[in-house]
Amino acid sequence: MSIPELNGLIAAAHSPFDASGDLNVAVVSQQASLFHEMGLIGVFVGGSTGEWFSLSLDERRALTEAWVDAAGDLVVIAHVGGVAVEKAQLLADHAQTTGVDAISCLVQPQLGVRSAAAAVDYLEAVSSAAPRTSAFYYDMETVTGIDVPLDQLLEIAIDRVPTLAGAKYTNADLATLTRAQQVSNDVQILMGRDEMLLGALACGTKAAVGSTYNYAAPVYQRIFDAMAKGDLDAARLANVEAVMFVKALLKAGVLPGAKAIMRWMGVDVGRPRPPHDTLDPDSARAFHEAIANMPVFARSLQP
Amino acid sequence: MSIPELNGLIAAAHSPFDASGDLNVAVVSQQASLFHEMGLIGVFVGGSTGEWFSLSLDERRALTEAWVDAAGDLVVIAHVGGVAVEKAQLLADHAQTTGVDAISCLVQPQLGVRSAAAAVDYLEAVSSAAPRTSAFYYDMETVTGIDVPLDQLLEIAIDRVPTLAGAKYTNADLATLTRAQQVSNDVQILMGRDEMLLGALACGTKAAVGSTYNYAAPVYQRIFDAMAKGDLDAARLANVEAVMFVKALLKAGVLPGAKAIMRWMGVDVGRPRPPHDTLDPDSARAFHEAIANMPVFARSLQP
Amino acid sequence: MSIPELNGLIAAAHSPFDASGDLNVAVVSQQASLFHEMGLIGVFVGGSTGEWFSLSLDERRALTEAWVDAAGDLVVIAHVGGVAVEKAQLLADHAQTTGVDAISCLVQPQLGVRSAAAAVDYLEAVSSAAPRTSAFYYDMETVTGIDVPLDQLLEIAIDRVPTLAGAKYTNADLATLTRAQQVSNDVQILMGRDEMLLGALACGTKAAVGSTYNYAAPVYQRIFDAMAKGDLDAARLANVEAVMFVKALLKAGVLPGAKAIMRWMGVDVGRPRPPHDTLDPDSARAFHEAIANMPVFARSLQP
Amino acid sequence: MSIPELNGLIAAAHSPFDASGDLNVAVVSQQASLFHEMGLIGVFVGGSTGEWFSLSLDERRALTEAWVDAAGDLVVIAHVGGVAVEKAQLLADHAQTTGVDAISCLVQPQLGVRSAAAAVDYLEAVSSAAPRTSAFYYDMETVTGIDVPLDQLLEIAIDRVPTLAGAKYTNADLATLTRAQQVSNDVQILMGRDEMLLGALACGTKAAVGSTYNYAAPVYQRIFDAMAKGDLDAARLANVEAVMFVKALLKAGVLPGAKAIMRWMGVDVGRPRPPHDTLDPDSARAFHEAIANMPVFARSLQP
Repeated sequence: MSIPELNGLIAAAHSPFDASGDLNVAVVSQQASLFHEMGLIGVFVGGSTGEWFSLSLDERRALTEAWVDAAGDLVVIAHVGGVAVEKAQLLADHAQTTGVDAISCLVQPQLGVRSAAAAVDYLEAVSSAAPRTSAFYYDMETVTGIDVPLDQLLEIAIDRVPTLAGAKYTNADLATLTRAQQVSNDVQILMGRDEMLLGALACGTKAAVGSTYNYAAPVYQRIFDAMAKGDLDAARLANVEAVMFVKALLKAGVLPGAKAIMRWMGVDVGRPRPPHDTLDPDSARAFHEAIANMPVFARSLQP
Repeated sequence: MSIPELNGLIAAAHSPFDASGDLNVAVVSQQASLFHEMGLIGVFVGGSTGEWFSLSLDERRALTEAWVDAAGDLVVIAHVGGVAVEKAQLLADHAQTTGVDAISCLVQPQLGVRSAAAAVDYLEAVSSAAPRTSAFYYDMETVTGIDVPLDQLLEIAIDRVPTLAGAKYTNADLATLTRAQQVSNDVQILMGRDEMLLGALACGTKAAVGSTYNYAAPVYQRIFDAMAKGDLDAARLANVEAVMFVKALLKAGVLPGAKAIMRWMGVDVGRPRPPHDTLDPDSARAFHEAIANMPVFARSLQP
Repeated sequence: MSIPELNGLIAAAHSPFDASGDLNVAVVSQQASLFHEMGLIGVFVGGSTGEWFSLSLDERRALTEAWVDAAGDLVVIAHVGGVAVEKAQLLADHAQTTGVDAISCLVQPQLGVRSAAAAVDYLEAVSSAAPRTSAFYYDMETVTGIDVPLDQLLEIAIDRVPTLAGAKYTNADLATLTRAQQVSNDVQILMGRDEMLLGALACGTKAAVGSTYNYAAPVYQRIFDAMAKGDLDAARLANVEAVMFVKALLKAGVLPGAKAIMRWMGVDVGRPRPPHDTLDPDSARAFHEAIANMPVFARSLQP
Repeated sequence: MSIPELNGLIAAAHSPFDASGDLNVAVVSQQASLFHEMGLIGVFVGGSTGEWFSLSLDERRALTEAWVDAAGDLVVIAHVGGVAVEKAQLLADHAQTTGVDAISCLVQPQLGVRSAAAAVDYLEAVSSAAPRTSAFYYDMETVTGIDVPLDQLLEIAIDRVPTLAGAKYTNADLATLTRAQQVSNDVQILMGRDEMLLGALACGTKAAVGSTYNYAAPVYQRIFDAMAKGDLDAARLANVEAVMFVKALLKAGVLPGAKAIMRWMGVDVGRPRPPHDTLDPDSARAFHEAIANMPVFARSLQP
């Protein structure tokens, strides 16, 4: 049951839509090819980047199936949370049957959960529906409103969630990250904030899940490789390049900007579902001009 | 299309579940009887009190149908938001077909919507699926994270949402409430925070949607009637009684406490869906003892 | 020692500066005349409106002395908090010696105080330096970061602060206000948020401290008088006028806008101390045009 | 005028008080000896750790003088902000006359400053009173409420503050830190959050100001030295030790706990000024037991 130690970069994959906005699982194999080309070790399916909040349960299941088919040696972590317990249990059971390597679980944001104990209640209930599959807690305070430090939560979860494999930590506090990594050897923390990769690696984190790894993994891989060799100068240089790219991306809008980049790389994942917008032609042109020559992408950007 | 002016109290109904946790629409007619008995003017179906976040689309549709059947002269407002645009559109279309008086729409919390314009985008898209049905925006910053003052949002919405009837305002700022009421005569603001009813009535609000109106409407009706007569002393006395009850309810936990009260009144709406808890026997006993003699309930509480 | 029941409006006075920015206590008697003219019952000296944060201890003392001299039958409440305990004690002792009717005490914002107990520690220490003078706690979460409900804090303070007279409540939550008013008959709550006056009066509040009462007391006095007679329609009309004025003031900037109005009324309190700005000529002209005909002022506005 | 590049650790010194709570500048030379013993490169005088908010202007001046006397080759940065512009200017002028190496300036928290432009207004006004002394902006959102990213603020300040030398960044976001470091070669960013030292060094930061460096500098110096040699394993090990110590310190209370440690090391800086507490005997015993054997201190802890 226990997932092996993860060591490398995992993309939080975009969900592909066609021109009518329908889920277009045919694109998944193109995404998988790109991920292999960039040396990623895994895929996180149907997370925030994957717009889980705009997908039906059937679409989430179809997406998981497509990724298990296309993954090859990529580790597949399926996000099964964000919804009511019973629905999340259906997704967890399906993910296990489909053969994912792990599930991950964001506490449903509307529940009003604020305490560590209640968050673990949710995780325990959902993960019990996939009793032979590793489970990662999904720590993202900006979405859930739960501001309990991750180490406190894991200390409770470790006694109550037999499949607990660790957590995806989407936060900037490296002291909490460090403490969470000390909770147990059986717990892996995946850094979930792309711009904090270098800091997290310095603190001993081994793997990371990121949204910009969909297309800009090369610059993060340079950080990762440089840190593996102890070459801090190279790591810092790549970090500056990554941060400057993210600055431009935030200005354009994360989902519209990222999906435009994917298209410019030849992998058309469509536009975000409404009410998220796509870039209008002028913004797209300005964004392309601002980033096209940045040394961060896996392929050249063809507008 | 336009809904007549609302004048009175509207319960944000609890969703009834049976002992296995399945939706139990048979109880809806009992709830409707209690609402008539208390003199309510309407019902708000599938809102936060109704645990929309723990209901499937099919359950939300079944609930709406049961309420339209049972409502009699109660105004029925169906909450159709909180989910992705396409799903909310399905609910809006269904609500119109079923014959509700109005829909209401909470912006899906995970979307990352922060601006007035983006919130109106969502409302516009959803309400366009029910083009002959009045629509109320659902303003609840603690859930959506949207902190735009309601008047600014309505000034944009009024030009873009032809079915706009007003908003449910679940917030304490009476200055914003007052400004929102000035935006247009075609806009009705429903106060959505039970403890602010007296203040809102003082500012000229005509109707309110509340969670505690499910069972404690009498005390709020006394506030309402006293204010209609300009009897401030009576209004203040009832307000103190209402506030002191809510203090006890918050201590017990809102959903578990409220559903216990409903059962003690003979209308068994079951327990909240997980991970929300039910009261354990000791807590239930202490809660009953604390509130049983409070002069706020429609019926005596039989544990 | 105990202050009599306050019943009416209290201005949070602006601190007067001359053209060089020095404290100009000569203007205090003009402010007092205006306050008498408007029917105010008291003055709150050196609060946030009075820019205590830009005053030295000597200036705060001089201001208190000037107000005790000029007050006539106005109740004088001197703010002595916001600074370190020892300095606040010096101010409290001086205020008592000077002969104020009461002191009020904002917990020093930098202290990192978050709990009710620690806030009461501060209040207890400061008020002990004026053992024969009534003390009002100053509840303003936006400045102190203390989010403990006022009633919980008062329940602790009432046993530990022998001079406790109540609190200035600068917040919008009328349920907390109502509960605070229930803590004891010996406790008076002064509403500190101008736009919430009508709602607070509906809930039984008897007195209020306000920044816009410096010059726009007439419109609030109309609210106050209408509520005393149970004439809700008149109260609502005045409330709309007050709220619309505050909307314009917020757009201009509260301190620069308010000090411009004072000057236009013939009471020149100067400009706010830096880095707060004064209105540039264009903004001043636009602001004057926007508000000059609003039916809220005590005197006409002569630019 | 320009300060040379800082490279190492700077203690945010505690302010020493005697048994009556009076400032006791005689202890400063003992603190300086300890700092030299630990290899620190500088001292930050009268910051948050130094309880500036509980010091009078005269005390702040006396403290600065004592440190300039005792510093030897330690760089002296005097905090001159947190108070009204005119007072901060007096402190800035005095600091320059006394001969500090640099000043630093926290925007006065009560001012209601929220924008980058207004924050720079404050910095510009204060630093203009020390026109021949390097000035560091003090970025600490938790105290000032200013949430403008530091790089945006520096881009404005660099054109308006001729003495600008950089900033003290007391925040966890390494992406903002990285961008701030890119603003100009003339700008030095000092990491101000002790637990983020390792992450910041990984991102290329050269110097840090810390509260726990008063007594636990050895463990941070090990992080610093290990990073200088590219020995990530050693850096990680020391980082875990530092983080675990801070966890214990937070439990005891930062100011009371830290001042107890100083006393146990033979440098008696007294207790924090009220309302901050000192540790009661039981808490002190428990805290000593929890930390005495941690491998982070410069001297053994003698209770």
